[in-house]
Amino acid sequence: MRLSQFHLSTVKEIPADADIESQRLMLRSGMLRKLAAGIYTWTPLGLRVLRKVETVVREEMNRAGALEMLMPSIQPKELWDETGRWEKFGGQLLKIKDRAEREFCYGPTHEEVITDFARAELRSYKQLPLNFYQIQTKFRDEIRPRFGVMRAREFLMKDAYSFHLTPECMAQTYQVMFDAYTRIFTRLGLQFRAVQADSGAIGGNSSHEFQVLAESGEDAIAFSDTSDFAANIELAEAVAPSTIAPAATAALTLVDTPKQKTIEEISGFLKVDPTQCLKTLIVQGRDGLVALCLRGDHEINEVKAAKLAELPGESVLAEEAQIVKIIGCKPGFIGPIGLTIPVIVDRAAAVLADFVCGANKDGQHYTGANWQRDAQVTRVADIRKVVAGDASPDGHGTLKIARGIEVGHVFQLGQNYAQAMNATVLDEAGKARVMYMGCYGIGVSRIVAAAIEQNFDTAGIRWPEAMAPWQVAICVINPKNNAEVNDAATALLQELQQMQIDAVIDDRGLRPGVMFADIELIGIPHRLVISERGLLAGTLEYRARAETENQVLPRAEAIALLQRH
Amino acid sequence: MRLSQFHLSTVKEIPADADIESQRLMLRSGMLRKLAAGIYTWTPLGLRVLRKVETVVREEMNRAGALEMLMPSIQPKELWDETGRWEKFGGQLLKIKDRAEREFCYGPTHEEVITDFARAELRSYKQLPLNFYQIQTKFRDEIRPRFGVMRAREFLMKDAYSFHLTPECMAQTYQVMFDAYTRIFTRLGLQFRAVQADSGAIGGNSSHEFQVLAESGEDAIAFSDTSDFAANIELAEAVAPSTIAPAATAALTLVDTPKQKTIEEISGFLKVDPTQCLKTLIVQGRDGLVALCLRGDHEINEVKAAKLAELPGESVLAEEAQIVKIIGCKPGFIGPIGLTIPVIVDRAAAVLADFVCGANKDGQHYTGANWQRDAQVTRVADIRKVVAGDASPDGHGTLKIARGIEVGHVFQLGQNYAQAMNATVLDEAGKARVMYMGCYGIGVSRIVAAAIEQNFDTAGIRWPEAMAPWQVAICVINPKNNAEVNDAATALLQELQQMQIDAVIDDRGLRPGVMFADIELIGIPHRLVISERGLLAGTLEYRARAETENQVLPRAEAIALLQRH
Repeated sequence: MRLSQFHLSTVKEIPADADIESQRLMLRSGMLRKLAAGIYTWTPLGLRVLRKVETVVREEMNRAGALEMLMPSIQPKELWDETGRWEKFGGQLLKIKDRAEREFCYGPTHEEVITDFARAELRSYKQLPLNFYQIQTKFRDEIRPRFGVMRAREFLMKDAYSFHLTPECMAQTYQVMFDAYTRIFTRLGLQFRAVQADSGAIGGNSSHEFQVLAESGEDAIAFSDTSDFAANIELAEAVAPSTIAPAATAALTLVDTPKQKTIEEISGFLKVDPTQCLKTLIVQGRDGLVALCLRGDHEINEVKAAKLAELPGESVLAEEAQIVKIIGCKPGFIGPIGLTIPVIVDRAAAVLADFVCGANKDGQHYTGANWQRDAQVTRVADIRKVVAGDASPDGHGTLKIARGIEVGHVFQLGQNYAQAMNATVLDEAGKARVMYMGCYGIGVSRIVAAAIEQNFDTAGIRWPEAMAPWQVAICVINPKNNAEVNDAATALLQELQQMQIDAVIDDRGLRPGVMFADIELIGIPHRLVISERGLLAGTLEYRARAETENQVLPRAEAIALLQRH
Repeated sequence: MRLSQFHLSTVKEIPADADIESQRLMLRSGMLRKLAAGIYTWTPLGLRVLRKVETVVREEMNRAGALEMLMPSIQPKELWDETGRWEKFGGQLLKIKDRAEREFCYGPTHEEVITDFARAELRSYKQLPLNFYQIQTKFRDEIRPRFGVMRAREFLMKDAYSFHLTPECMAQTYQVMFDAYTRIFTRLGLQFRAVQADSGAIGGNSSHEFQVLAESGEDAIAFSDTSDFAANIELAEAVAPSTIAPAATAALTLVDTPKQKTIEEISGFLKVDPTQCLKTLIVQGRDGLVALCLRGDHEINEVKAAKLAELPGESVLAEEAQIVKIIGCKPGFIGPIGLTIPVIVDRAAAVLADFVCGANKDGQHYTGANWQRDAQVTRVADIRKVVAGDASPDGHGTLKIARGIEVGHVFQLGQNYAQAMNATVLDEAGKARVMYMGCYGIGVSRIVAAAIEQNFDTAGIRWPEAMAPWQVAICVINPKNNAEVNDAATALLQELQQMQIDAVIDDRGLRPGVMFADIELIGIPHRLVISERGLLAGTLEYRARAETENQVLPRAEAIALLQRH
């Protein structure tokens, strides 16, 4: 390929309505053009990257034994009625009426269609297991589409669905898919973690999210610094301290704290570290109020709290009026001592001794408080958010916290859909059995944006090798009316192509500075410069995208260097 | 690939609601499954074929210098308002409202989107010419979807759009695309003709349809038996005979034909060949009635007639009452002699002598009629449909008539869309100039059906080599518990793969007859049978899909045979 015959359309201006760096860089590099809110055209440059991702995904899905097919984008309402999702899916479902007033939707996902396919095509357990996938355009009518292709309405997705006679078989294929996803994101050159996840709206038993680590990520994840452990921060266990609470050494003392309500105020006022203070939250329980006690520096994890038997399935703070009525003081002065409601203490708070806590009297706190001596504890439980430095729940290493962008998701769906749609096969005994299903998604177009979020600098994108539109740019200095440098560029291109290296010649005739800025902006990993002077010397000027210095190398050496990548 | 790990789902029953052979065979072979009217799922088997077509299309488009991109399927109404097509496109346009009640459509074609893209991205004539294409799912809400994927509502299309400063440049790219299409359909192994076509609703100057020849085709086309000439039958010229009318030898004689009105009746009654009879049609002219005279065995071509200056732009037969009033007799007895309205004579009819024609009196005809002596002729013109055996208009060979399935279409759009949407670039003088456009479509999914219409027999599909799901089936006899034949099959598969031959092992353990029937139904071009007996003898049993006899060949010879294909 020659850029003189390509359509490259970089822009200097930073787009005003772009929210994050990947969106800005995709627009500036000319990979994308917005057609409507959340709806984008992939230019020839953008599509090259998208196709590289797609190819890796396809190769690894095939290698894992999944069978590619293609389901329609337009799906009839009747199927969605069978699972109840026509109503439940909500406003993201783009509903359509055809000319005969029949109702359809633009598929945001394909559980209904594939389950309908499976119940018609699969008759016997002998046909199982099967794993079908497709790479296809989906539409979700987001209320607020944003971040470019990161949260677009029309997007490219790989979705796979597996069918099984038993849950054990489902778990096996789940693991095969987990491994395939790991290979995909590794091959794409991304920093990622496979994160234990809540399975959310799609439902089912077990699920992992594959998160690309990037500061702009919407999800917070906790992962071990030495093992594979990773979990969504809402789900990460805060393991119990290995110690127990030391024996009390201080006397319980009432102190005046007239205006000090927050941990920060108390800790400053009493000159005590926040880790020695107790934070007591009053929430709505199933029967009256419940007190939740945390170490001063910790935060409540509402997902964990909601699962406590004493709570009604969600964690909602009590109103001030109710607190005053039942406990007799305002929030800010509450503590576990003397409370008559259930007191649930976080594992880390439970090993405190001689701590500071509210005295359940306005304007007063205790110092020198101790659990065993002074308070009635209903139960110790894990109710806090993990923090960096916590021990990893798998026993290996300590936790780090990072932000992530979800690019893949694997689920064990179980029998949810198959049951609702009566998708059965005959087992060995000739009895109809509802199938077990797994489903496995990858946001193909989102990966492109996520990779940029993880790989950019002030000059532009820095593509991982496997995703770059081209691996090598051959920049020609003064190509106009200069047959020798043009011929040398063509010969070099052909030589690289024979080595399966995807290269492009920049023969647009731009000034070197402008040309190099374009090549850096669009993120080509390797740059070779061909000039008249270099030709005479038999050298090429090489620079890796990640570096700031050129290397002048003999031609053969430059080629050998590229071959090593 | 092994069929034991694939999902092959052939059916014996002939689907009741299938209209044509390709649809029946795609359903029976398990390539397709219907989701809703005109909406189909491509199974793993079907998708293999679709992808092979797609790959050939992509390779040839790239070779022709076109740049692949990907536009959204969902398009905003505002763009379609600019060209007026939101209303004009009619009921095929699937209109959609999003959650914010904004109006969109599911793209049936992308002239508006690409022209919007071009006007934003292209600034200077230096960027031209450019030819963008995509391979993408389209939706057209057909009133009566039928014939399976031949006329589906959701379908896969390759659409390309080129941009130019001048009409000459547009014509050049048009020729490049014409040649690329010729290569595509040739590589796919299809019998086809590039047919001059009316450009129809999309508008523009010049256009060709690429028609796959098949009896079930909806379009009739005329083509030379020796040259490249081909035209839609409505447009094919009936060239003037090289002779002139012989001199009169018979006297004009009035004969009674009391009940004989049609050419067939007259010709039988008077024992005269239909080629010696004249057919006179009375149509509505711009000013009163007009007579159109044809040789008795010829048919009026209404598209040609409508272009006559004497007609109002369409060819409509006059009503009987009007004919009786003006001419004085009923239709069936009309002839040119003595008429006072314009008489337009077809080229073939104009060289008749001593012919039979109506006498403009009920129940009477003339014999021995001659133009010069007996009638007033306004003009000789080409107004008939060509028939097989006519001279080809390009001067080479004679015409054949066949039916065709349109699989591709190339247009010179001119400035239609660019003008409506103000898509301009600056020319050398810095002046804004409206661009010229070409557009080039291929019905990717329709090709699959068209290929079957051209290639099937009672046993099933007979794929052209390039489109087959696999080129070779390696059929294993008794694969269960028979390591030797399985190993031999695996070794053969690997050997063929190294030769870039796409092979599949049928190791499902079916009885040979059932297995062979499946392999024939799904249309694999070459079959190799591996059995214990053959292994001992070092032979393979080979059969080409098109043949009815097996050949027992030494292994190396069988492989060499496949390599030659």
